[in-house]
Amino acid sequence: MKRARVSFGGLIQDAIEVDGKVKLNDGRMVEEADVVWLPPVKPQTVFTLGLNYADHAAELSFDAPKEPLVFLKGPNTFIGHRGHTVRPSDVTFMHYECELAVVIGKTGKNIKKEDAYDYVSGYTIANDYAIRDYLENYYRPNLRVKNRDTCTPIGPWFVDKEDIADPMNLTLRTYINGEIKQEGTTADMVFGIPELIEYLSSFMTLNENDLILTGTPKGSVDTKVGDEVITEVEGIGKLVNTIVGEND
Amino acid sequence: MKRARVSFGGLIQDAIEVDGKVKLNDGRMVEEADVVWLPPVKPQTVFTLGLNYADHAAELSFDAPKEPLVFLKGPNTFIGHRGHTVRPSDVTFMHYECELAVVIGKTGKNIKKEDAYDYVSGYTIANDYAIRDYLENYYRPNLRVKNRDTCTPIGPWFVDKEDIADPMNLTLRTYINGEIKQEGTTADMVFGIPELIEYLSSFMTLNENDLILTGTPKGSVDTKVGDEVITEVEGIGKLVNTIVGEND
Repeated sequence: MKRARVSFGGLIQDAIEVDGKVKLNDGRMVEEADVVWLPPVKPQTVFTLGLNYADHAAELSFDAPKEPLVFLKGPNTFIGHRGHTVRPSDVTFMHYECELAVVIGKTGKNIKKEDAYDYVSGYTIANDYAIRDYLENYYRPNLRVKNRDTCTPIGPWFVDKEDIADPMNLTLRTYINGEIKQEGTTADMVFGIPELIEYLSSFMTLNENDLILTGTPKGSVDTKVGDEVITEVEGIGKLVNTIVGEND
Repeated sequence: MKRARVSFGGLIQDAIEVDGKVKLNDGRMVEEADVVWLPPVKPQTVFTLGLNYADHAAELSFDAPKEPLVFLKGPNTFIGHRGHTVRPSDVTFMHYECELAVVIGKTGKNIKKEDAYDYVSGYTIANDYAIRDYLENYYRPNLRVKNRDTCTPIGPWFVDKEDIADPMNLTLRTYINGEIKQEGTTADMVFGIPELIEYLSSFMTLNENDLILTGTPKGSVDTKVGDEVITEVEGIGKLVNTIVGEND
């Protein structure tokens, strides 16, 4: 099942996908374009992977990391499907990053990788924009690269784990104004979902609705004000985002 | 006024300090040792400064940063006054760090440094433990250094801004088992409170109860299981913490 959180008529509601439409909690069926989309989950902690695809690390002239390179994201940065992301007026490079986002389903600590999927409830899509101007090194990126307001669209749907046969074999694609710009597969992750859950839970408690943004493959390019950017993950959906200027 | 959040008789209550005692929201006066202390604020985002005292940067053999070196902390890491911090059994160095924590009072973006204190509601104390084993470079520390469960005691009191004449001139001290180990002053910050608020709000919205942990001066040393560690900030109070083992 695909689930969402939407605002319709000023009221925030849970919703599910039925025949390509949005079925609200109150039973009404509405069109996808007629609701305001919120991030489909409300996480406590959001973990984000840097350089978790070897080909993407290479295009940035970095070696692939030897242990997961993880940083946290603050809640100010998240917006929903069909939202607007502000491109800062004083930067040169703002790159999209199409990512599979793993949703944690229950509290866990010291989880072994063979048990990791027991702690996953499902998946969604993130577009983890990066302001490359401030990416000064291989290590965890600074807040000006990865934590700006509106720079992490997420959604549209939360998809139940049971509906995705193999999350480690999904095609990722990004389109700008309808033209395909990035294509890769989750099979190329340096650290897969079970390894990431084992690593993170070895020193931090994972909680329900925490998110792990698993990184992006190569093919990130610049975006401009006015661009429509669609990040797609096979079986999960298409996340639509529009770039706006600071004063739009 | 000094304010706290405590649990007493199984109920979480707001409290204030009166004559060295804890006055509960329901009017009862209780002893400081008879309540369970919670972090005094519930932040949305916690910003933490690295190397924001030049003498501390020097003792780690790093240059002082040229722009604020900031990272985020997840909610799993916070505990209250008189809480227990778990020392991982597989690490060599666990250093305390006594820090002034600034509490944001209202939403703001693009705040100028001359207006910064208008956005501050008060102050508390943080002990921002670091697992030095994993501190591999000058840049933002990885999650294994700074985001472990229980490794950021905070409190005991939230102190109103009006009660602190000059937050940029407060003595910081840390004691282990009653012996003073660290002493410094907030006057030595590389980036002061107004500069930090201007910097962070230039690309992220600050919200009520967000926290800025402003860094620690030199004098960090290792702690062992069983140690009582007290971090003190002049005018704010004393934050008591005890180190326990993984299986305690």
